[in-house]
Amino acid sequence: MTVFELGNDAIIVDTGIMFPANDMLGVDYIIPDFRYLVERKDLKIHGILYTHGHEDHTGAVAHVVEQLRGVPIYATPLTAGLLEVKLRDARLLNETKIHVFQSGDKLSVGPFKVESFHMCHSIPDCVGFGIHTPYGVIVHSGDYKFDNTPVDGKQPDYARLAQFSKAGVLLLMADSTNADRPGWTPSEAVIDHAFDQVFREASGRIIVATFASLISRIQQVANAAQKYGRKLAIAGHSMTENVKMARNLGILNIPDNLLVDLNRISSIEPHKLVVMITGAQGEPSAVLARIATGQHRMLEVERDDTIVLSSHPIPGNEEMVYRTINRLFQRGANVIYDPVMPVHVSGHCSQEEMKLLLHLVKPKYFVPVHGELRHLKAHAKLAVESGVSQDQVFVVENGTVLEVDKYGMRITERIPGGYVFVDGSGVGDIGPAVMRDREILARDGFLIVTVDIDKKTGAILNEPEILSRGFIYLRDADDLIQQVKRTVHEVLANKNLNGRRREKLQESISRILYNETKRRPMVFSVINER
Amino acid sequence: MTVFELGNDAIIVDTGIMFPANDMLGVDYIIPDFRYLVERKDLKIHGILYTHGHEDHTGAVAHVVEQLRGVPIYATPLTAGLLEVKLRDARLLNETKIHVFQSGDKLSVGPFKVESFHMCHSIPDCVGFGIHTPYGVIVHSGDYKFDNTPVDGKQPDYARLAQFSKAGVLLLMADSTNADRPGWTPSEAVIDHAFDQVFREASGRIIVATFASLISRIQQVANAAQKYGRKLAIAGHSMTENVKMARNLGILNIPDNLLVDLNRISSIEPHKLVVMITGAQGEPSAVLARIATGQHRMLEVERDDTIVLSSHPIPGNEEMVYRTINRLFQRGANVIYDPVMPVHVSGHCSQEEMKLLLHLVKPKYFVPVHGELRHLKAHAKLAVESGVSQDQVFVVENGTVLEVDKYGMRITERIPGGYVFVDGSGVGDIGPAVMRDREILARDGFLIVTVDIDKKTGAILNEPEILSRGFIYLRDADDLIQQVKRTVHEVLANKNLNGRRREKLQESISRILYNETKRRPMVFSVINER
Repeated sequence: MTVFELGNDAIIVDTGIMFPANDMLGVDYIIPDFRYLVERKDLKIHGILYTHGHEDHTGAVAHVVEQLRGVPIYATPLTAGLLEVKLRDARLLNETKIHVFQSGDKLSVGPFKVESFHMCHSIPDCVGFGIHTPYGVIVHSGDYKFDNTPVDGKQPDYARLAQFSKAGVLLLMADSTNADRPGWTPSEAVIDHAFDQVFREASGRIIVATFASLISRIQQVANAAQKYGRKLAIAGHSMTENVKMARNLGILNIPDNLLVDLNRISSIEPHKLVVMITGAQGEPSAVLARIATGQHRMLEVERDDTIVLSSHPIPGNEEMVYRTINRLFQRGANVIYDPVMPVHVSGHCSQEEMKLLLHLVKPKYFVPVHGELRHLKAHAKLAVESGVSQDQVFVVENGTVLEVDKYGMRITERIPGGYVFVDGSGVGDIGPAVMRDREILARDGFLIVTVDIDKKTGAILNEPEILSRGFIYLRDADDLIQQVKRTVHEVLANKNLNGRRREKLQESISRILYNETKRRPMVFSVINER
Repeated sequence: MTVFELGNDAIIVDTGIMFPANDMLGVDYIIPDFRYLVERKDLKIHGILYTHGHEDHTGAVAHVVEQLRGVPIYATPLTAGLLEVKLRDARLLNETKIHVFQSGDKLSVGPFKVESFHMCHSIPDCVGFGIHTPYGVIVHSGDYKFDNTPVDGKQPDYARLAQFSKAGVLLLMADSTNADRPGWTPSEAVIDHAFDQVFREASGRIIVATFASLISRIQQVANAAQKYGRKLAIAGHSMTENVKMARNLGILNIPDNLLVDLNRISSIEPHKLVVMITGAQGEPSAVLARIATGQHRMLEVERDDTIVLSSHPIPGNEEMVYRTINRLFQRGANVIYDPVMPVHVSGHCSQEEMKLLLHLVKPKYFVPVHGELRHLKAHAKLAVESGVSQDQVFVVENGTVLEVDKYGMRITERIPGGYVFVDGSGVGDIGPAVMRDREILARDGFLIVTVDIDKKTGAILNEPEILSRGFIYLRDADDLIQQVKRTVHEVLANKNLNGRRREKLQESISRILYNETKRRPMVFSVINER
């Protein structure tokens, strides 16, 4: 999410989400902190412009529209279609207006003149933006690679990029995802060869798992299916919906007679069928993980199946992906994934493409965007190697404000730009304290001792009760329970503790538990006086 | 861990540990289930033979020696040194005898004739074993790659491998870790070139992080330090100990005057210093992660530091490793890691080396070992492509018993072969129930309501008390707390619940919490009758 301001006018480019790291326990997803926009009442926000339809660029749209009602949206047809689905699900479709434009169109958004230009990525209908300012053009690349043989035949708009440089580019903001990869990212076309081999060699069914939004991959599989005389079925709600929409928009070219409904596949001979499914990242609720554990209603792995994972694991998902692959092998399938065969390529540019963009655009200033800090740093280095002056390259983190005037560009204040965790229906209510508690509970669980004592004498009135989860299997821990109970008696026999009784009891029990098990569960005590 | 039996005699090869996956909450490490060996009282175990000193081959030694006291150990000098440290720490050094042998030695272990042969890997002093049986030799490769320019100059023992094939090899068991990688794993020597460049270009200190046991990498860095006139300091307990031992054994060749103590490095000019540290997998308690978060007592990142991560993330560690790299960049260091430069290569063979081993040894039967199921399957495919008959290749999982006699080899029974979780001092006491509880607690925490009621009338005697952790920040959740309290009153007003009061209360509270937050914490209720 980036905001461009000109006096009191502003536009937003993209509103994505991030997926939580493995140690962000219980977090569903992360949205940008856009408090600043909500609080700047003087700022007139004229529109949200989208580069493309992936979750990490659109996923927070409902949160943003809910807070900034009435702000219109600008998107290309496919992106607009994907945004509509999200807004309809959130019952917010009436709170904004979606302006659909074609790549190449020039947009007037409030006082902003914005030129869109076509870029290639792993989803069709991607654009970058040239935003005109009094000090020159700001070029925002969107996510891209320079694919000269894209599946839909639409090359990147090299001419427009070169034209920007002629007019004078103030600033280039460019995709840094693969900034540590030398060379040039392969075209989507290389996958066709791998699929050709898979389709030639498979004797049974072929099942291809990929991202639901990877429309061009779906086209490639459909093409191979047609070539090799197989019917195509689609499994997974999101992919089914995306195929329907993309076919309606004419972006996906699949004849009716190629498709077969998932609940009719048993009537088709295995070697005449290919099924496309979701879940190539091993997500437990998606189709691939469900067939790997035998929990899908309509699709079951058969001995002769060839299953293709047409994706690379996103960092953090490796374990889940490989576990899923192992389970599919266990069920007797032949599983094909990169590096076994090149059945996936990245949608993001590598170093040579980054240099090409820098040379096409010839920016005065450069800000690497979209990537971890290590990628931004690597991209910055490339920019300097490509001729941008070292002091005109800014590596900035979320929440940094850059200001430009006739004297040039500089980093100014920091505004809130951290992660906002979404957990269930709660947005931003999970702070460090709750997260730390979840960590401790995840590691060692908890134990609670409840005991009734006589208000006057302090005598223990009944057997202490112990409740515990996630710590140890209590039924096998008689000795330990007896020790805890003895500790309760010992501590409460001390009449000099006064207000520190509860605290002291917790300390003593924690110590016993650690000595006996080398674990540190959360310990609580409840002392009821009667 | 593999057991070879001949009648009532047996030997064990390796006793490793596994590291827990990210979702094995609170587990410290995993040991093999060797109940079978403890229970087979009739079996005479003559020795444990080790291929090399890595944790995934030695880590469970203390657990095994504790259960099988008196069984002697056989290992090469470096491996023996590493085992001794472990056994001393566990106060079990007197419970076994360590026989040290040199690679190439022939061993008599009970009735077993075993020939050791040198193999290359990422630690010196690695061997494989040729175990003689009445039906031919069983060749166990250990972990290996065919490195023709190893750091210590000791090539793999090709001749011995070829000799086995002449005598007739019954079975080859071989390392499958990289079975999905085409080609040939680069030699450790390629790293020298990358280090040369790093040392030539670095203007300040150089810090190299790698595995504590990667002795040959330590040698390479020491060589570069000498060449470029830098002193070498070592940080991290395990690496310091390993360096000391390997120097004593003559395996590591570092002159005294090259070394400098870590607490004296401030007296050395930055461009005259290199520090080797542990923690290249991002482990929070190791040196690299501590300097990345500014928590190391003696080492602080400086702006001009060049930090090299000489390792690849083990699957599952990617997030931690990349987060550590980002933090080091944030502190101003220049961080170098693969793919930025080839500062690490795998210690395991790729497909062409696997084929070479198959052709050198020419086994009748083949069992791929050491790898996930996907690797074993890929290795099996290579074996068939290399001429082993399809029905003489067995892909087996832990706990499978293979039997061989004059009629050939076959899979017979399954014995317990699962994972045994070690958590704190507990071995195997964390089962699926405790793990499931930890998962729920990690995701949504818990909430406990305690209420006192009148034994006779059932009337609520005091305000219900609420204790919760990991669910929501209670101080900001007044409304929710009030709703829970109202629910307690409503449920307990129903006098017809009898024994189901507690259960009903928990259900109702869970429902309220889910409706309001879309989260599902564990809910408990304690009803005290007075």
